[in-house]
Formats: sequence, structure tokens, C-alpha cells
Amino acid sequence: MNDSIRVAEIFGPTIQGEGALIGLPTVFVRTGGCDYRCSWCDSLHAVDAAYRDTWKPMAVTDVMAEIERLSGGRPVMVTLSGGNPAIQPLGPLIRLGREKGYRFALETQGSVARGWFADLDMLVLSPKPPSSGMEMDWAMLGQCAEAADGAQTVLKIVVFDEADYRFAREVAEFLPLLAVYLQPGNHTPPPPDDDSAGVDQAGIDARMRWLVERVTADGWFEARVLPQLHVMLWGNRRGV
Amino acid sequence: MNDSIRVAEIFGPTIQGEGALIGLPTVFVRTGGCDYRCSWCDSLHAVDAAYRDTWKPMAVTDVMAEIERLSGGRPVMVTLSGGNPAIQPLGPLIRLGREKGYRFALETQGSVARGWFADLDMLVLSPKPPSSGMEMDWAMLGQCAEAADGAQTVLKIVVFDEADYRFAREVAEFLPLLAVYLQPGNHTPPPPDDDSAGVDQAGIDARMRWLVERVTADGWFEARVLPQLHVMLWGNRRGV
Repeated sequence: MNDSIRVAEIFGPTIQGEGALIGLPTVFVRTGGCDYRCSWCDSLHAVDAAYRDTWKPMAVTDVMAEIERLSGGRPVMVTLSGGNPAIQPLGPLIRLGREKGYRFALETQGSVARGWFADLDMLVLSPKPPSSGMEMDWAMLGQCAEAADGAQTVLKIVVFDEADYRFAREVAEFLPLLAVYLQPGNHTPPPPDDDSAGVDQAGIDARMRWLVERVTADGWFEARVLPQLHVMLWGNRRGV
Repeated sequence: MNDSIRVAEIFGPTIQGEGALIGLPTVFVRTGGCDYRCSWCDSLHAVDAAYRDTWKPMAVTDVMAEIERLSGGRPVMVTLSGGNPAIQPLGPLIRLGREKGYRFALETQGSVARGWFADLDMLVLSPKPPSSGMEMDWAMLGQCAEAADGAQTVLKIVVFDEADYRFAREVAEFLPLLAVYLQPGNHTPPPPDDDSAGVDQAGIDARMRWLVERVTADGWFEARVLPQLHVMLWGNRRGV
């Protein structure tokens, strides 16, 4: 069990709903456990210790076997998410999968840097803005970007309001070589135990329109503004 | 007037709502006139000769001045759309804009190849599937891809049904080096003279979910499936 991975869920293939790989078919491996506790977390079932007994320690070969079963044995983009997947020992899984032709993207807030980030096909750094209630460690975010060591790295920043928007601009100035994806926040995240809870999509859409106007009026023409497609299409339903 | 461009509308900056540059701020230059007449055309005001008197012949310098006015003089991605912009003399505009730091993407069905495709930052080839009622010239599509001569080129294919899906797979096999973006069709395109006409977004979303399932079940893991964000956010409203 030494190098086992704590898995909250494995599902797919479905499309990536957000960020740089939006629309691309992918299998998700969501790990359990997080060093953050964002106020608007939309994956509490993989974060809150109350759900810890639903997280399954799995051997690397068992995780890979499940990915291959889901993809029918055809190489596909694997998205490592959480929780914070950076606190799990994912290096061996990434190396094993890549030998079989699979590709790997990892999404993390940038609070823990790992040498194996360099083995990824894409590192998505998603530093949390003021509305999350979390305090960011700028030096550590920089170390995460460095750990990628040439692996494609992008920024994905959730924006709820003007303070979050200014934070996003600061992050982009801090890491000027990285492409930036902005995402309007969902103020109606799913309760961890109610998959059928409603989403205020009209409210999220209004925030998206505001964000488009904010970015274009500001002349920030390099940033991309993208919604959470899976929420638009499937609401808060899990496993899609 | 020799080299003037026939312009239906210039607007933005707003985000690109579809395809490879989805979410990116852009100014649209929509040219008037088209050699196709797709059954579900969503830009008839730039296609149907009945609207020809609304298309304005503009000098290259005047088009560029309007782009610069809209972007506040900051270089932005310019999207050349139509109608079929490939039937307009756009080479001089692209060269002038690039000298000023602007970038250019062009969207065309691939029925007319131009040497100046090679000066683009991105060529979007959007061959029309069977549901359009148009007949595709495969050789000409290949010539368009060749004309790009190394400029980034992608495929964007609208899909309404299974026949369109099979067409998309054929096109991808014909041009295997190009990234593929699939887009669920809008069966409620705007009438050219009624900007406020309703959109059956629920129906389009259902087609999007079908397309995601079709692609993932088929193991076509390289294709990306993306909706028309602008329609989701603003309906059939023009100028956004």
C-alpha cells in the first residue's frame, strides 16, 4: 500500500468541460484529499474528510487497468483532478500510462510542487482567488511552474468578482509566459451528497457575460474566457 | 474600388464563440457574399443577395482603421468570417494588420483556395456536411489546406446527425494532420431580418450531449466537441 493512490472516483470518457483542453475526450481520475478548503469548492466529496471512507486506496496497476477498461484500451487524455492530486504519488501512474500511449493533464492549485510534473503532457495551475478564502503562496506557485520543466503549463483562474479579476491579472503578470484561462465561478456548487441539487445557470451565464465585457474592455486580449461546459450541459450531475 | 472589401459587418471585441480559438477576445470582420447556400446558414444577412445593399465596399485602410478603433489600438485577434471571406481580396488587409501586431484567423468552407492563406495565423476549414445540402469538392479542400503552407490549419465541422458525423470522420481521414473541432448544429438559425428570434437551446444542448456520446463511444479521442458559446450566452443576437 506504500505507493497506492487515494481515489475518489474514476469516470469517463467524457469531454473536458473547462480550460485549455475544453471539448477533448478524457477519462477523469479524481483523487481524494486536499490541503485547501475553498469556500465555493465544487468537489467537496473529494475534499471533505467526512467523505474519506469513500476514497479507495488503489495500486497504480489497478488505476491504470480501470482507465484502460473505460477507454476500451485506446489511448486517451487522462485528467488527474481532485481534491489536490499533487499530494498523491502519481509519478508511477503517469510513467506507466505514457508507455501505453496515454496522455496526462493534471489540475492543481499550485500549493505543492512535484518533480513528476515534468512528465505531464499538461500542467494546469489553478491558483485560488480571494473569493475562495484561501491565501496563496506565490513562491510555491512559481516552484510548481518550474517543476513542470518545459511540460506545457497553463493558468486557469476562477473569477467571481472584481477582486478575483485583479488577482488573475496579478498572477498573469507573475507568470507571463503561461496562457491564461478565466472561468466564471459557480455560486451554486453541488452539496457533496446531493447530486441532483440545482444550478443557477442563469446567474453563472450573467457572470460569464460580465467577465467577457471586463476582459475585452480592459484590452486583455490574450486571456481566454471559458465556462464550465459540463455544468451547462449536465448541471451538477457527477460522472459526466 | 479595385481592391475594396465587401463588408457585411465589423464588430467586437467579443470572445470567439466556437472552434479552436473558443473564448479568445477577437474582432470580427464579416464579409458579404458566399458561393454556398447551406440549408441551415446562420449568417444569411451576409450570404443572401437580398441583403447585398447592406454590404459596404470598404478600402483596406478603412477596414483596418475600424478594427483599430474597436480594439482601442491594441493588437487583437481578428476573425475573418462571412459569407465566404475567401472570395474577397483579404491579402492586403492581413499584411497591413500583421505589420501592426494584429493576428488573423479566417473561417471558410474550403471551396476557394488563396495564396494569402499562408499569411494567416490560423486557417479554419469548415467543410459543409450532407445536412447543408451542399456538395463538397474534396480536391479543392485539399488545395485550401495546401495553400495555408504551414500556417496553423484546423477543421471545424458542424454535425446535425449520423450522416454528418460519418462525413466528419471521412474529412479527418482525408486531412489526418489537422486538429478536428466538431460542433452541434443549430436547427433554429436566426432569420436574417429578425435578431430577436428564439433559439431552441435545449434542442441544441441535446444534440451536443448526443455528439459527446457518439465521439466517446466511437473512441475518437482526438476530436474536440464544442458548442457555439455565443448562442448559449446571447442567443441569436448579432454583434456579440
